[in-house]
Amino acid sequence: MTDQRKAVVLVSGGLDSMVAAGLAREQGFAVLALTVNYGQRHAIELQAAARIAAELAQRHVVLDLDLTQFGGSALTSDIAVPKSGVGEGIPVTYVPARNTVFLSLALAWAEAVGARDLFIGVNALDYSGYPDCRPEFIDQFEALANTATKAGVEGEPFTLHAPLQHMTKADIAREAARLGLDAGLSHSCYDPAADGRHCGLCDACRLRAKGFIEAGLPDPTRYAGQPQA
Amino acid sequence: MTDQRKAVVLVSGGLDSMVAAGLAREQGFAVLALTVNYGQRHAIELQAAARIAAELAQRHVVLDLDLTQFGGSALTSDIAVPKSGVGEGIPVTYVPARNTVFLSLALAWAEAVGARDLFIGVNALDYSGYPDCRPEFIDQFEALANTATKAGVEGEPFTLHAPLQHMTKADIAREAARLGLDAGLSHSCYDPAADGRHCGLCDACRLRAKGFIEAGLPDPTRYAGQPQA
Repeated sequence: MTDQRKAVVLVSGGLDSMVAAGLAREQGFAVLALTVNYGQRHAIELQAAARIAAELAQRHVVLDLDLTQFGGSALTSDIAVPKSGVGEGIPVTYVPARNTVFLSLALAWAEAVGARDLFIGVNALDYSGYPDCRPEFIDQFEALANTATKAGVEGEPFTLHAPLQHMTKADIAREAARLGLDAGLSHSCYDPAADGRHCGLCDACRLRAKGFIEAGLPDPTRYAGQPQA
Repeated sequence: MTDQRKAVVLVSGGLDSMVAAGLAREQGFAVLALTVNYGQRHAIELQAAARIAAELAQRHVVLDLDLTQFGGSALTSDIAVPKSGVGEGIPVTYVPARNTVFLSLALAWAEAVGARDLFIGVNALDYSGYPDCRPEFIDQFEALANTATKAGVEGEPFTLHAPLQHMTKADIAREAARLGLDAGLSHSCYDPAADGRHCGLCDACRLRAKGFIEAGLPDPTRYAGQPQA
């Protein structure tokens, strides 16, 4: 009789992390969902994370981490969210070292409870602007995890899964459907309306809307206006 | 006219991180001191960190991070601190992924404010039990930092300084004296008395006491009883 293997899955509340959690569950893992409340999140995102965790996770930890104490424009919420389309280069919505911080916390939880698998919903194809979404970052973090920890040193290595790495947003929309997940539970928008509707214009909304269109699937997202893909 | 270069220094309140901060200042950096209050710290340690930061830092951030939410014996405070001497292997006082988490946070702060230097007071000689104090961990984290960040990708690489890496505790005690630092400001004990005195028996106390003896320097530490080196 063996216990079910556990995996720590970073769940932001977005579509990508929902699909990552769904894939972890499909692979037979008990999902430990980790949401980091780092001071830049809308309550709406945290609600989406809670809905997703209620659906897919055995346990959900929402960890408060007030990164706004560090200052720096990119970490505070007073920068305008760009709405003119997905541009070149690293977007201003980049948060310094975010995925490094999030994965470190996931690693700490995993080691503390004997999980050896971490899942993150990064996606390098449609969102190559963030340095910490690239395959080389994922590979280097996995190697670091096994140098940094007692488990790694003692020969019980961690595996960092990034199953959405090479998917387009259309692939991700299809995966959600295949896994029987309600994409409407998730929230992607950087600048939602007070009632939680997606703005339809920020990068995250544009990529999300485009994904459903390209997948030929109905988009369950509630937009405040006509979305731009 | 150039601004003074900034460095983020992890300041736990212990002697090692005090010396690391002193060395950063000696090298001309404006010290940004980062203390992570991760739920296992004694108030006494935080007070020591505040004293050290007041002496050496331009700014001090104490970041609350409640790792006790993750459970797991090693992350909660209900394990007994061993007092029978420094043993073989990885001590039970190991906290899963602690330095990975701390350095990630230091990296986030550094990138947010334009610092490109991080300091950590790890020390592999007297304390080889922790996997995340070893030189290979430090090297891998530095490489990761430059893959993970906008600054690293755009050619303004981070340097991770671990100036105590190859020092003995005696060397560190001597460095404190050379830098004119009052070692009595720092706190090392895992299990202090209610009035803040060091127990003299835990691994951290034993290594600290031994360091002053071997350096032939007076030990300013207030012990609750006769320390064992």
